Amino acid sequence: MNIGIYGYGNLGRAAELCAIDRSDIHIVSVFTRRSPDKVQTFGAPIYGRERICDFVGKIDCMLMCGGSYDDLRNDTPCLAEHFNTVDSFDMHREAAMHRSLVNAVAASHSHTSIVSVGWDPGLLSIFRLYSKAIFPDGVVNTFWGRGVSQGHSEVIRRISGVKYAVQYTVPIQEAKELARNGISLGAERRHRRECYVVAESGAEESIGAQIKAIPDYFAGYETDVHFISEEEYLREHTSMPHRGEAISFSTSGIYKEHVTRASLTLEMDSNPELTASVLLAYAEACVKLHREEKYGAYTPLDIAPAYLLDSDPISIL
Amino acid sequence: MNIGIYGYGNLGRAAELCAIDRSDIHIVSVFTRRSPDKVQTFGAPIYGRERICDFVGKIDCMLMCGGSYDDLRNDTPCLAEHFNTVDSFDMHREAAMHRSLVNAVAASHSHTSIVSVGWDPGLLSIFRLYSKAIFPDGVVNTFWGRGVSQGHSEVIRRISGVKYAVQYTVPIQEAKELARNGISLGAERRHRRECYVVAESGAEESIGAQIKAIPDYFAGYETDVHFISEEEYLREHTSMPHRGEAISFSTSGIYKEHVTRASLTLEMDSNPELTASVLLAYAEACVKLHREEKYGAYTPLDIAPAYLLDSDPISIL
Repeated sequence: MNIGIYGYGNLGRAAELCAIDRSDIHIVSVFTRRSPDKVQTFGAPIYGRERICDFVGKIDCMLMCGGSYDDLRNDTPCLAEHFNTVDSFDMHREAAMHRSLVNAVAASHSHTSIVSVGWDPGLLSIFRLYSKAIFPDGVVNTFWGRGVSQGHSEVIRRISGVKYAVQYTVPIQEAKELARNGISLGAERRHRRECYVVAESGAEESIGAQIKAIPDYFAGYETDVHFISEEEYLREHTSMPHRGEAISFSTSGIYKEHVTRASLTLEMDSNPELTASVLLAYAEACVKLHREEKYGAYTPLDIAPAYLLDSDPISIL
Repeated sequence: MNIGIYGYGNLGRAAELCAIDRSDIHIVSVFTRRSPDKVQTFGAPIYGRERICDFVGKIDCMLMCGGSYDDLRNDTPCLAEHFNTVDSFDMHREAAMHRSLVNAVAASHSHTSIVSVGWDPGLLSIFRLYSKAIFPDGVVNTFWGRGVSQGHSEVIRRISGVKYAVQYTVPIQEAKELARNGISLGAERRHRRECYVVAESGAEESIGAQIKAIPDYFAGYETDVHFISEEEYLREHTSMPHRGEAISFSTSGIYKEHVTRASLTLEMDSNPELTASVLLAYAEACVKLHREEKYGAYTPLDIAPAYLLDSDPISIL
């Protein structure tokens, strides 16, 4: 399979590293918005994004490695005109709209796209769907962390006086215990938020108050803000471990006396490398679907597990 | 959806109970090999198996609720001529053959069958497949128990002098810890076997030795045999809790310095009720596939998650 990597930030670099490990995958090129001679890859050729049209017909699947808000919303619908694509679009509320936009372009140009690929949305969504189908009256709760939320970190960085910032989402253990017993709390009672901020001197008090007041992101959550030095930030807060867990609880039997619990847990030292590994697996599925002339846009929920493998999966049964 | 339940042992009764809870499902009839006037259901009509042909065209999907060895091997290929079917065929080594046999019948009579539905094979198989596709160099280990293995219990019951017997498969915690760190041991070093036997008096010593020597099932495993009274057996060993866990371990990064762990855990008070719930969810998928004229036999690995749900799954993403 010949792939392209569109975008060369954390996710793009992780995609290159993970692809190098897979003998069935060849990286045709990385595409960057920066000046390509100033960017060092792990060995893959690199071009500016404006050169993309030279590669039409040479790439089986393009891995879209930008952020959802700034990049994928526009880039995936654009590139689906010329390539099969997989992306990790993760804005849950806009996912249906994104799929529609990509679908319109991909279907009319005989391409196949898979959107919202990753671990959440993605692997945890698949668990939630199976749970919902098998236990229609059950409850499913998802817990994220401890790990960095890029979206929340970004929101803090936009505050004036903030030099660097990182936000950890931390699950609340008591809420997890309740979820194991079928009791659902809102997201803001399942998680707390830890912020580490490098601020221009004197701005601390105002920044702390501003963070805690940001609606949707922080207001309503237990939020701790720690001000640290630039040295501490660079030393302690640039790795990207994360964790996700979905827990389902249901009952059955004459008197509903039988409990069934299911849980999917993902623990990763590198959030971008897990996302990249999932993108690569779905790139295989994308190329297979395209070969079968199944054009348009899909999510991981629409893809049979067997599409991710080359061989007959019955031996895995 | 109009379903039939073929076989009325533990699994058939569980299927009836679980179907009663689902407003979208109507049980047309249960079919038993016993005399139907001697069998009490929870309310569903019941007929002898010889009446099955009267129901052709009246049942959207037949839930095959027999055992793999004695029933499903023959019954599913037979009934696939007249009905869409789902079964829980769980003999891993014969699964490919079973699928082929059922496929030949179902495809040539324009029916759809899903075989090997349940939690293992089934849900844990799906986890193993996703793991294999996303982490080609990773390792996956499956642990079963603590819970009753019907197959192992049955093998003990065939020994002369045994009145009742039940065998619990018990995972070894140290092996689980090794699996979390990427080290795989053989199944016989991941599990031990606890047997509770009601024996005719005087036969104990010979029975214990015979059990431990049975190849494939017990030889090579740490096996404990406890002889108990009939009262204790009936009081302590007739419920059917079980547990299953699949754990995957993989590494990524320039120096393979990043670990990703994933695990799916299933804990159930009633093994047959979980299996029945999974069968019902796949019965929905079976009917949908049949409506789309996708005939033949499938396993859960071949079915897109979205097929299990009635509604657009994007809201679950």
